[in-house]
Amino acid sequence: MNHPSFSNAPQRVAVIDLGSNSARVVVMAGRAGFNFHLEDEIREIVRLREGMTSAGLSEAAMTRGLFTLRLFKQFCDSLQVHHIIATATSAVREATNGAQFLERVEREVGLSLRILDGDQEAFYGVIGALGALAPENGVVVDIGGGSAQLSQVRERRFKQGQALTLGALALTERFIRTDPIQKSELKAVQNEIERQLDSVAWLRGERGPVMGLGGTIRNLAKMEAARQRFPLQSINGFTLSLPALDNLIRQLCELPISQRRRIPGLVRDRADIILPGALVIRAVLGRLGQNELLVSESGLREGLFFEEFWRALPYPVVPNLREFSVLNLARFYNYQEAHTRHVQFLSQRLFDQLAPLHGYGPIEREWLSAAAILHDIGTAIRYNDHHKHSQTLIISNGLPGYSPREVAIIALLARYHRKGTPAVGEFAPLLEEGDLRRLQHLAAFLRLAEYLERGRNGIVRDVHVQWDKKQLTLSLVSEQDPTVELWVAQLNGLDLMKSVFARHVILENTSSRAV
Amino acid sequence: MNHPSFSNAPQRVAVIDLGSNSARVVVMAGRAGFNFHLEDEIREIVRLREGMTSAGLSEAAMTRGLFTLRLFKQFCDSLQVHHIIATATSAVREATNGAQFLERVEREVGLSLRILDGDQEAFYGVIGALGALAPENGVVVDIGGGSAQLSQVRERRFKQGQALTLGALALTERFIRTDPIQKSELKAVQNEIERQLDSVAWLRGERGPVMGLGGTIRNLAKMEAARQRFPLQSINGFTLSLPALDNLIRQLCELPISQRRRIPGLVRDRADIILPGALVIRAVLGRLGQNELLVSESGLREGLFFEEFWRALPYPVVPNLREFSVLNLARFYNYQEAHTRHVQFLSQRLFDQLAPLHGYGPIEREWLSAAAILHDIGTAIRYNDHHKHSQTLIISNGLPGYSPREVAIIALLARYHRKGTPAVGEFAPLLEEGDLRRLQHLAAFLRLAEYLERGRNGIVRDVHVQWDKKQLTLSLVSEQDPTVELWVAQLNGLDLMKSVFARHVILENTSSRAV
Repeated sequence: MNHPSFSNAPQRVAVIDLGSNSARVVVMAGRAGFNFHLEDEIREIVRLREGMTSAGLSEAAMTRGLFTLRLFKQFCDSLQVHHIIATATSAVREATNGAQFLERVEREVGLSLRILDGDQEAFYGVIGALGALAPENGVVVDIGGGSAQLSQVRERRFKQGQALTLGALALTERFIRTDPIQKSELKAVQNEIERQLDSVAWLRGERGPVMGLGGTIRNLAKMEAARQRFPLQSINGFTLSLPALDNLIRQLCELPISQRRRIPGLVRDRADIILPGALVIRAVLGRLGQNELLVSESGLREGLFFEEFWRALPYPVVPNLREFSVLNLARFYNYQEAHTRHVQFLSQRLFDQLAPLHGYGPIEREWLSAAAILHDIGTAIRYNDHHKHSQTLIISNGLPGYSPREVAIIALLARYHRKGTPAVGEFAPLLEEGDLRRLQHLAAFLRLAEYLERGRNGIVRDVHVQWDKKQLTLSLVSEQDPTVELWVAQLNGLDLMKSVFARHVILENTSSRAV
Repeated sequence: MNHPSFSNAPQRVAVIDLGSNSARVVVMAGRAGFNFHLEDEIREIVRLREGMTSAGLSEAAMTRGLFTLRLFKQFCDSLQVHHIIATATSAVREATNGAQFLERVEREVGLSLRILDGDQEAFYGVIGALGALAPENGVVVDIGGGSAQLSQVRERRFKQGQALTLGALALTERFIRTDPIQKSELKAVQNEIERQLDSVAWLRGERGPVMGLGGTIRNLAKMEAARQRFPLQSINGFTLSLPALDNLIRQLCELPISQRRRIPGLVRDRADIILPGALVIRAVLGRLGQNELLVSESGLREGLFFEEFWRALPYPVVPNLREFSVLNLARFYNYQEAHTRHVQFLSQRLFDQLAPLHGYGPIEREWLSAAAILHDIGTAIRYNDHHKHSQTLIISNGLPGYSPREVAIIALLARYHRKGTPAVGEFAPLLEEGDLRRLQHLAAFLRLAEYLERGRNGIVRDVHVQWDKKQLTLSLVSEQDPTVELWVAQLNGLDLMKSVFARHVILENTSSRAV
């Protein structure tokens, strides 16, 4: 990058993405490598590919493109964006007059538009997906308006990728004339998809998992999420199963556009082009023998952004996505770092020492850690009921790299960090057998740790645990009398411990006189 | 005040209130005269009055009091509170050994506890209530554990007040021996209340409104709110009607304590003492011929805090409570001042010029103004769906000085500032006839103003409105081309205007070339 756009001060980076169907500008704010959040965005339907011939983009399409880019540029200027990354993909790339269009953009709008070739488009899509999902290896499918990219991921690196002319809009324009689609048209689309997939030599040896990104895929996921009454707002990490996908395809084949528009979750202006995208995913899953697609909410734009955001790293994929997700959320809500770190420490001390009794391992420990960091973020909404607000914030933002089940468990831990009897409520459909017991144990550690750190000043240095068949003894290590912490832990911090371990629980202060 | 505890940097002030039934410490954070919020609190039941004789507070009660104060002091120290305001009320005031207790507190805990006399207790309660409610004149009833205060308010000043030994705990201990209460006991409590009210000479000339505060009154309001499924979280500004109060009294008379505890909204540890408090309010409303009680969530503690917070003012009641409430909330969520002020300006320009068509006045204009200031606070939660988050934040915090109906309307305006067809939803029970039409008109102005200020840089300086029977023409005044604003306002900003005024709406840019 030529322009270091993030400094230690919070700054704004915009990514403009001129696609074949839609154009979007996203404005990200934050500090490079430390935190970021979406601050604003505009989306506009451009349908750049409409009326494209061997002479290239049509005059009308170019006018729409120029208008939209001028709009985005002025938007960035008024928001005082520090750095604009502006790219175009397949429509401009494939247009014979693409270079001419670029010149006009430079001259008339004052934007340097970078045309991404198929390989670059695949690369940035993968970088985006790896900023949202945790798999080490697999295949990434990115379905755009004009093209679709297939990429191979190895050890969280983009290995190779290929752009195919399998975009949702491109396929629709080429093959679909009737509404609802005729059998012969459906067959033609499917044949074309299979023909192009045949050309991807490396795909034969792949198994999965399959990760998906782009507007079409997000939209399919939202339709299925709406049908299931999926209890999270974010569909990042959502798994779209093969049977669910087949149901969606059947529905999209049977209904005319006017009725498709009414399917919950479907964005109206995608109703006419979404089917071919669904068929592409279906074909890829079929070839790989996979029965689900893992959905990423991040894609090309985020990939372009991450290259800038992670520029201090040798490769723009964060080494520990899950840890970063938690911190990024905590930082947005101005978490109290010292307090939450100490709650994390104390809760993990309880977890570790009591491992012989509960039998949980590193995954549960990581959830506890995430919940400890995030337990108080709800105070950004309001002190009263802040445990409930913490749950709300975790659920509405999601945690990239964690599954929906894990997001629900972490949110529930935050919810029960102060009071209440842990219950899974609306999240039951996401959970597995034994998760209520997990929640109860982890909430017991988190709650006790929170009350041992009630004064938010680290007064209780450590806690030692001993037990026999009837009793659990917790000895606090502190330099001064932890009056508040002893009182409040006795009052509110021991009930869950007693119930999960079915023992009397004794709290004592060893290093100084007892109160 | 001896210790200027707020400076321009955010600071913390704690108020400790050692009551006859419960003790509480609240920690307020903010900048004096600019903004504040509750940051943390602890409540403990002390029942200081228990076992009190002519020899004064019992040894056990004093031990509980000292323990609790030590706890609160350490809590304040660990939170690095800059200034502690510590007070005690009727139990210590009436105890013959009160002075001795004060000395022990000073010596053993290191706190200077200030005993409030009856007049001071009444004064600070009124200052608290006037920081939460808007009436100019009226009567304030503050029911505590030991005493109850009755005060007269004139032009938002405390005029005079009187402490009576009508606290909920005091009356319970003195008169109630059976569970549920016997008729004779009920009669005795009522007679005592009437006898003491007779002693308040100035009460005879009073009419109302009657404002109520203190834990007992808040709790009665919460019970009625739960029964009604009141759609706001905060019960500040809630009106408890006479029939509702009579119902509550009937229920509390009939049910034994064990069943009272299960009444939704009732705090368990108040179940045994809440009835006499309800009878005091009933008697006051009866004497004044009033049929409702206006509930304040703020009271003594807040009054003590306001004296410090508003110390730059000649009297610790903010001159414009409603305006301050809005700004205080906006400041907590780091609102973008320049942008919201400009949205406020543009929306009011629309409101004012179109007044002949809509016919609304200063109250509706004030709601529009409040919603303009608060419309974007939801971005503190997340950019996506921030209009919904703004609604949530307004609803969960409330706006002191506004009625529940007004809070709902302002929240709905924020909700519909970007998109959607304004609807009243769950807030219907709070609204009056014509409020949906009000909402639609005000949302039309707010939304158009928001889109005319989409780039958040004040590019559209002003808007001039002209109309005839068929058409409304909006002429923008700007120095540069407001490309983004024209585009986005055309796309999203005019639909509501068209529908509320049933006219074509034309948007034109007058001061520079059109796009």
